[in-house]
Amino acid sequence: MNFASDNTSGAHPKVLQALSQVDAGPAMPYGHDPVTARAQDRLRAVFGHDRLAAYPLATGTAANALTLACLTPPWGAVYCHRDSHINTDECGAPEMFADGAKLIPLDSAHGKLTPQTVDAALAEHTPGFVHAVQPHVLALTQATEAGTVYTPDEVAALARVAHAHGLKVQMDGARFANALVTLGCSPAEVTWQAGVDVLAFGATKNGTLGAEAAVFFDPALAHGFAYRRKRAGHLFSKMRYLSAQLEAYLADDVWLLNAGHANALARRLGEGLAALPGCRLLHPVQANEVFCELPAGLADALSREGFTFYRWGAGDGGSDAVGVRLVASWNSEPGHVDALLNAAGRHASQAA
Amino acid sequence: MNFASDNTSGAHPKVLQALSQVDAGPAMPYGHDPVTARAQDRLRAVFGHDRLAAYPLATGTAANALTLACLTPPWGAVYCHRDSHINTDECGAPEMFADGAKLIPLDSAHGKLTPQTVDAALAEHTPGFVHAVQPHVLALTQATEAGTVYTPDEVAALARVAHAHGLKVQMDGARFANALVTLGCSPAEVTWQAGVDVLAFGATKNGTLGAEAAVFFDPALAHGFAYRRKRAGHLFSKMRYLSAQLEAYLADDVWLLNAGHANALARRLGEGLAALPGCRLLHPVQANEVFCELPAGLADALSREGFTFYRWGAGDGGSDAVGVRLVASWNSEPGHVDALLNAAGRHASQAA
Amino acid sequence: MNFASDNTSGAHPKVLQALSQVDAGPAMPYGHDPVTARAQDRLRAVFGHDRLAAYPLATGTAANALTLACLTPPWGAVYCHRDSHINTDECGAPEMFADGAKLIPLDSAHGKLTPQTVDAALAEHTPGFVHAVQPHVLALTQATEAGTVYTPDEVAALARVAHAHGLKVQMDGARFANALVTLGCSPAEVTWQAGVDVLAFGATKNGTLGAEAAVFFDPALAHGFAYRRKRAGHLFSKMRYLSAQLEAYLADDVWLLNAGHANALARRLGEGLAALPGCRLLHPVQANEVFCELPAGLADALSREGFTFYRWGAGDGGSDAVGVRLVASWNSEPGHVDALLNAAGRHASQAA
Amino acid sequence: MNFASDNTSGAHPKVLQALSQVDAGPAMPYGHDPVTARAQDRLRAVFGHDRLAAYPLATGTAANALTLACLTPPWGAVYCHRDSHINTDECGAPEMFADGAKLIPLDSAHGKLTPQTVDAALAEHTPGFVHAVQPHVLALTQATEAGTVYTPDEVAALARVAHAHGLKVQMDGARFANALVTLGCSPAEVTWQAGVDVLAFGATKNGTLGAEAAVFFDPALAHGFAYRRKRAGHLFSKMRYLSAQLEAYLADDVWLLNAGHANALARRLGEGLAALPGCRLLHPVQANEVFCELPAGLADALSREGFTFYRWGAGDGGSDAVGVRLVASWNSEPGHVDALLNAAGRHASQAA
Repeated sequence: MNFASDNTSGAHPKVLQALSQVDAGPAMPYGHDPVTARAQDRLRAVFGHDRLAAYPLATGTAANALTLACLTPPWGAVYCHRDSHINTDECGAPEMFADGAKLIPLDSAHGKLTPQTVDAALAEHTPGFVHAVQPHVLALTQATEAGTVYTPDEVAALARVAHAHGLKVQMDGARFANALVTLGCSPAEVTWQAGVDVLAFGATKNGTLGAEAAVFFDPALAHGFAYRRKRAGHLFSKMRYLSAQLEAYLADDVWLLNAGHANALARRLGEGLAALPGCRLLHPVQANEVFCELPAGLADALSREGFTFYRWGAGDGGSDAVGVRLVASWNSEPGHVDALLNAAGRHASQAA
Repeated sequence: MNFASDNTSGAHPKVLQALSQVDAGPAMPYGHDPVTARAQDRLRAVFGHDRLAAYPLATGTAANALTLACLTPPWGAVYCHRDSHINTDECGAPEMFADGAKLIPLDSAHGKLTPQTVDAALAEHTPGFVHAVQPHVLALTQATEAGTVYTPDEVAALARVAHAHGLKVQMDGARFANALVTLGCSPAEVTWQAGVDVLAFGATKNGTLGAEAAVFFDPALAHGFAYRRKRAGHLFSKMRYLSAQLEAYLADDVWLLNAGHANALARRLGEGLAALPGCRLLHPVQANEVFCELPAGLADALSREGFTFYRWGAGDGGSDAVGVRLVASWNSEPGHVDALLNAAGRHASQAA
Repeated sequence: MNFASDNTSGAHPKVLQALSQVDAGPAMPYGHDPVTARAQDRLRAVFGHDRLAAYPLATGTAANALTLACLTPPWGAVYCHRDSHINTDECGAPEMFADGAKLIPLDSAHGKLTPQTVDAALAEHTPGFVHAVQPHVLALTQATEAGTVYTPDEVAALARVAHAHGLKVQMDGARFANALVTLGCSPAEVTWQAGVDVLAFGATKNGTLGAEAAVFFDPALAHGFAYRRKRAGHLFSKMRYLSAQLEAYLADDVWLLNAGHANALARRLGEGLAALPGCRLLHPVQANEVFCELPAGLADALSREGFTFYRWGAGDGGSDAVGVRLVASWNSEPGHVDALLNAAGRHASQAA
Repeated sequence: MNFASDNTSGAHPKVLQALSQVDAGPAMPYGHDPVTARAQDRLRAVFGHDRLAAYPLATGTAANALTLACLTPPWGAVYCHRDSHINTDECGAPEMFADGAKLIPLDSAHGKLTPQTVDAALAEHTPGFVHAVQPHVLALTQATEAGTVYTPDEVAALARVAHAHGLKVQMDGARFANALVTLGCSPAEVTWQAGVDVLAFGATKNGTLGAEAAVFFDPALAHGFAYRRKRAGHLFSKMRYLSAQLEAYLADDVWLLNAGHANALARRLGEGLAALPGCRLLHPVQANEVFCELPAGLADALSREGFTFYRWGAGDGGSDAVGVRLVASWNSEPGHVDALLNAAGRHASQAA
């Protein structure tokens, strides 16, 4: 019973079905095909923005690194949370694609940057001081690496700070659907209407085989993107197969239903674990991830019973407490959540 | 009726079927899944080499650029044919992934490098001369950009020159299956047994959605590849969906049957066109591409009748001759070949 | 009266004299000249290491970035102090020359890394975890950005941690002479004997026009350095003019006398300021830099009287305290120190 | 007696004298000093252009690579002569500084590009074709690598072709003074008035220790240059010492007298050698370099007598002919030219 990551799940049947329905006959390659046009239209409709430029991609790393490279020169700086995926889990992809631009890691609670944190960091920079990299981008993650979610107001407040200093706002939306379901707002409200300039729209974790999109709300910011994508090896000749995934993902509310399923299970997991003695949530559960501190014995017992999850940083509740991360996927089974909570309850009561 | 490129074709039904049969339940991500293990085993079996290291990738650009980056330092040089895809059609991907390494374009007939050409080019270099980039790689294309094919002996002769100068041999195998069918040899004979060190094994043009593989016959040469792949955004979390494509592609001779079909149609196209007045083949037809010189009026007439193909360089048969490229795909329809030859014959006889 | 930086000073007369004595007649370019051979011999003698590989360079940025690029692959990480010059004042040079490698900023008091800090940071890394950059270098600064100095024992303790994790140790020695004079040890004791693998040996701040050296105590680590230097534009055709600077700098104890002069003035400045009411040193004065907290009114008054220095971070002594940095150079005039201390004393007593 | 290269010569006495006259007292670093301001003014006066932006640098590689990086995006192409220094002798520096941009080598006689050659090469490119690098720069060398010189009209004709296709024109002026003396025109006439956008102004080969300048005739093209220079390690803290070299070089016609001396000796060498049996010039002698075909026995005899020069490509006068390059410097001794011609004459008559 696997709670290790949402990337351990496979693809949604409707996404696979869409692939099999793609006409295998001749079509213009490299995105000049009707499926890609439809997927782009769908994204414009979903975001209520008829001018956005959308480019299908296959991985989140590509979506993040290529969009960032469009927003910063090589001597630029990207301000981001210390724990953000782009800072810790892309093996330097943003730095490579932006020819050595620098990520400036910032600390704040629960994975969420605050306007104060960003403002203070930017205040340390002297504009034009040639010895330092120049601030160009504020990068947010939605949902965050801590499983929390920015409200539209929070995004707007951060974007105001960024824009006031001349920075662009990029959003890593690897778990965008999970955030959206929690917020209950429109995609527009928490992106371009709140000041997000570019979105790395994720879909892989939530039900596609491997399909994401770079979404530029201001098409002018996509200058050079087509060339960057090509030379990065991310221009797919048979792009219709990426686009078909996106189209199916966005149709029939597949993306929102998937995220809603995962979020609900995560919430149940979080509430159940938090109620046990010696356990407490390390972050609010606002998407599909649970960060929880457990007695080490309990974590070990769950592992032994075949539940898979990651240890995640150290708990601070004492020497015998450990932090764990549990992630629910679009196809996680409710019964597995029950089984984990039952097992945890059993072990907790034995220990008490 | 489309003869523009083999990348205008879609995916083979068995490849799509394989995708739908991948278990959507939890599996270890990033290639630590059983489907990937099976695809790698299959590649080892196909190449008769039980130690090769194979990494699934999604695009040929990635396969070429990432393998080259493993074989040359930033101050290195890659010797290649002037018309090779890596030199003309990757928008600088090899240069980017290899941090500015240089491609040295060489000229020779019919897209095929010769030992003499390579040897002469290498003779111009003074080893250790710090002002010049240092030769590190000989890059071959199989089948070539001119639709021709290297025999195992030809590859071996080139590899001997390369190895004698300390270079590694990389092969761009975007149309490897097409070459193999023509040669009628084993995959091993024309790769590692002939001195190829690393192969960018192509499958996308010949029937997958988007799946290739980097194949290192000496695993030691893959040093750093895993990191390079990750930071390039080419490490797929749900890699089983790349691997399933490769597995199906290599099963039941799908790849060879597909290539055989395309090659046969190309041969028929080539023979038919060459027999027409004012027409001649610019290169021997040895794979699935036909390069032909036509009277400009004939080319125009075919375009008007709805046949799609590229003009390709200038013919030298006089001011009214043009060069064209026609490509047959794994699912090109024989009837379309008949139709094109009929139309061409009709126009040619009218003009005469 | 300028205390802004030691790079506001010019070149030492003996260094200039050496330039004028270089034979202007034909000599082999690019370092194959007798002056360069002598300078390299001198460095070997100074460091008591007859196998070290030394390369003259013209700037500290080049010395740092090019040596780091030799020690880390593009997917590597360089652990360094958050305030280190390579992290804050090179405009991303290390990241560029190392093709996107990442600097990991660490915090610790007075600009000095501790074994505990480094060990804790390395413990967060899972070796081989492909999603993260891999630790390859520990970068120290001697003297530090806070004007403090590592003892040989401290360097050795840090190097042990680094080497235990497979990292190499690079030292930014932009103010190496200043540190050495304070320590009173041999150059060997605080570098290779303490575990330093590569030193960016600084001379420009301390009396040359523009001359530094990359010093590899293990020549094998210099693999590729000659090519990196060339393609970075840092291979000087008339290298004898860099080498002559280094030779003169290291002769007749010029470098040590210069540093001793600057250090003594800094110490006097530090002691004088620390004795004033409302003033306190922010870091121990161990080289030629003074970091001091002053009443804002006092700092303003000194600026008005024509003393030049930088504000440096915020003091924490209350809302009216400011931090300042004062730097003494090899040719700072003692009378200027007296003048500053007199003026400061006058203003401080008026304020009291 | 050394005719190997003009970079084997040292620095001119007036340049050295200028260094010793630089005030060693405090001055603002990084180019904010009065010497640098004067050198920049001098360049504006020399070029009759009061808005040009000039940046002192220390090496020609830096001047070429950094200016090119300002003119092309990473996916751009630089069209240049196959034998140009940037293509053959910078170890990939332009590619590195421009993050993988590509040099497109063109062939034409005597090292000089022609409008026809450039136009034909550009005609092969389909604008916006995303698979290919995009033409951004035409790079000329003045004097060329073959010791020939472009007239203002020739430069203007090339620049017209370049500008018509949207390219910028960069000029590698490593031997600009030598060309200028031959042309007898003003610096303006053969640069910005003829359409050159950016000049890498060389001085090192012709009498400085190591000083060049990046000269942007349209300051807007220098966007980002200050950051690129810094992160390349080419921003000198004590820039006054670069600037003083440039100032002295441009004063009192030092640069023109130096170049005139070298050119005259080269012309004499060329005429003398060309008059010998079995000898012929491979290129017109228009600057300070002589490319000559000699009987192999003669070349060997001259080497044995202690004359130093490079073999340079193969002569085509038969199996016993070799190509050589002889370079005269600003301080080459006329007596050495006499000696070489005497020796050559003696050997030639003996052989006859």
